Amino acid sequence: MGKDRLAAFSDGVIAILITIMVLELKVPSGADWAALQGLAPSLLAYVLSFVYLAIYWNNHHHLLQTVVHVNGLILWANSHLLFWLSLVPAATAWMGQNLSAPLPTAVYGAALLMPAIGYYLLQLAIIRKQGAQSVLAKALGSDIKGKISPVLYAIGIVLAFVSPWVSIAIYALVAIMWLVPDRRIENAISRE
Amino acid sequence: MGKDRLAAFSDGVIAILITIMVLELKVPSGADWAALQGLAPSLLAYVLSFVYLAIYWNNHHHLLQTVVHVNGLILWANSHLLFWLSLVPAATAWMGQNLSAPLPTAVYGAALLMPAIGYYLLQLAIIRKQGAQSVLAKALGSDIKGKISPVLYAIGIVLAFVSPWVSIAIYALVAIMWLVPDRRIENAISRE
Amino acid sequence: MGKDRLAAFSDGVIAILITIMVLELKVPSGADWAALQGLAPSLLAYVLSFVYLAIYWNNHHHLLQTVVHVNGLILWANSHLLFWLSLVPAATAWMGQNLSAPLPTAVYGAALLMPAIGYYLLQLAIIRKQGAQSVLAKALGSDIKGKISPVLYAIGIVLAFVSPWVSIAIYALVAIMWLVPDRRIENAISRE
Amino acid sequence: MGKDRLAAFSDGVIAILITIMVLELKVPSGADWAALQGLAPSLLAYVLSFVYLAIYWNNHHHLLQTVVHVNGLILWANSHLLFWLSLVPAATAWMGQNLSAPLPTAVYGAALLMPAIGYYLLQLAIIRKQGAQSVLAKALGSDIKGKISPVLYAIGIVLAFVSPWVSIAIYALVAIMWLVPDRRIENAISRE
Repeated sequence: MGKDRLAAFSDGVIAILITIMVLELKVPSGADWAALQGLAPSLLAYVLSFVYLAIYWNNHHHLLQTVVHVNGLILWANSHLLFWLSLVPAATAWMGQNLSAPLPTAVYGAALLMPAIGYYLLQLAIIRKQGAQSVLAKALGSDIKGKISPVLYAIGIVLAFVSPWVSIAIYALVAIMWLVPDRRIENAISRE
Repeated sequence: MGKDRLAAFSDGVIAILITIMVLELKVPSGADWAALQGLAPSLLAYVLSFVYLAIYWNNHHHLLQTVVHVNGLILWANSHLLFWLSLVPAATAWMGQNLSAPLPTAVYGAALLMPAIGYYLLQLAIIRKQGAQSVLAKALGSDIKGKISPVLYAIGIVLAFVSPWVSIAIYALVAIMWLVPDRRIENAISRE
Repeated sequence: MGKDRLAAFSDGVIAILITIMVLELKVPSGADWAALQGLAPSLLAYVLSFVYLAIYWNNHHHLLQTVVHVNGLILWANSHLLFWLSLVPAATAWMGQNLSAPLPTAVYGAALLMPAIGYYLLQLAIIRKQGAQSVLAKALGSDIKGKISPVLYAIGIVLAFVSPWVSIAIYALVAIMWLVPDRRIENAISRE
Repeated sequence: MGKDRLAAFSDGVIAILITIMVLELKVPSGADWAALQGLAPSLLAYVLSFVYLAIYWNNHHHLLQTVVHVNGLILWANSHLLFWLSLVPAATAWMGQNLSAPLPTAVYGAALLMPAIGYYLLQLAIIRKQGAQSVLAKALGSDIKGKISPVLYAIGIVLAFVSPWVSIAIYALVAIMWLVPDRRIENAISRE
């Protein structure tokens, strides 16, 4: 089985998720600055989640480039990742409507942690099919970013109950860390 | 007529359905644990339907691999399947908001039964075009899973008026039964 | 410019429209038969519109098969068609929530009439590029279905103010008339 | 990295945005002419935004034709453009529900200005990769339309606080100016 339809389906789901989040930007009921200001927290949460989903799309794009054939395990690891990504819009809306409230901030962190785990498992599934000498295994190397991110999310979740803004700063920091596109895979492919 | 646009259109519809269900996860109005707990039944229904739609996408994917050319009958059998799948989000939301109520549980069972029938008819339409010696006909063989599933859904529908949780357990059981990817088609293709 | 991206974009829009309509099937607030029955008019309107959009997707699919290169006029005629199709969900919801009310039934008829005109203009734009000897021009021939449909919609719009159910019957009749896939184009292509 | 998946993802996002706007056309609660008339301002705003998104899709389509390989900068410039486009539906809904109110009209202008800047930056990113002798650089030439549009949007934003209808007229004027497809790129490609 080829990977094209898997890539197309994943792109479709991520494209829909990224745009469906916009529906949670409830149009303010007034027409003045106060109404617009009331939208600011939701907009902030939206920007952060938009960046996260764009990063996932981007890295998922690179990840699938290392794949030639897809097996059942990869298919389900991919669906598992998409499942957790699909909960991001709801978590974004909840945090946006209750910005700096402890529990919504912690839940948002969990909504970032779970896809990170899903992405890690998807990498494992791909490497397992390709074998230890796989392009992807070489490309990932020690994979510091991939290992440090879940730790930072977990810290953010715990800190949300102490100081929610620090958690949000951590979530933003991890996003910035990933904004640099992952050149490891590109390099590993060109080295082949 | 080729099958590519049919596959792309079906993928698009299923990708949208799977993500649109998320919109029914109404963001809780409070910011505490009670608000989050109120979401639990909807989340449970969402997980079950996500798995079902992922299974349909996965098996539909395999099914179309056996197809080279598409005729009018296949086109309409496919649209018929998509119609019933399109009712899954509404049934999911209703069951989620009234978890363990008899009628919504029965309606959810019907929302699983109808696509199963639609999928069966789509298989018939494909086999009819390919002839009795078709790859698909050989791959399906006696098709025990395909024949037992509608029976289990029907039992679930009836039992919903007696014990809704047993029905939900049956729906979950059928999902688990299908989670194993359908290797019959893959095997039949490689035997050719 | 090739036609592939045009086809993909149109498919995407139609796939989203067909599934977005489902969001108008507002989940009933109760959990009993009365709540379910209240959904029946919306479901009826949904079925009709689902069939219409599936027909448009199907025929649009055939139509683009006759096209090799796309010019600006075809691009805009296609966008014009998609615009009118995009109003179908809103018209469907309004008719479904006020089934057999005169004005919503007439507006629904207008929501069917306008895409029919848009489709006709798209055909003209394609024929104009291909010239009078075009595959499409030959395939369409006298195009009785294409000419009679707008007339029937117009009759339905007027009759809505007298007897809305007759209008709905007419809309359903036109749908059935189109359910037969358009073999003219397939035949014209094979004759080449 | 090829451009195909980038084009497909962008098409997906724009297709979803264009159809999601329809969800803001809230179905009127009555069934009479008054209910329908109440929808008119939203419909007007919808038409304008539909045309804008169709123009962006169309020109984006042409723009990517000049691209062979995509680098990280182009990828992010494209995501940046999509981000601003994703805010168009919310701005459209707000203006539609408060037609001719100053602030929503100004915000709508900003929602047009930002994607225009994003599109400009995307062009820069593509030219930077292709070098000064690039097809795109030649095609754009002095790019009068691209330079005058942001100025007109800015004028519209300021005028919204004086005379909102003049602003809306300006927004419509810019749309009409762009409705003519951009032949510069087509011509530059054929000259090669």
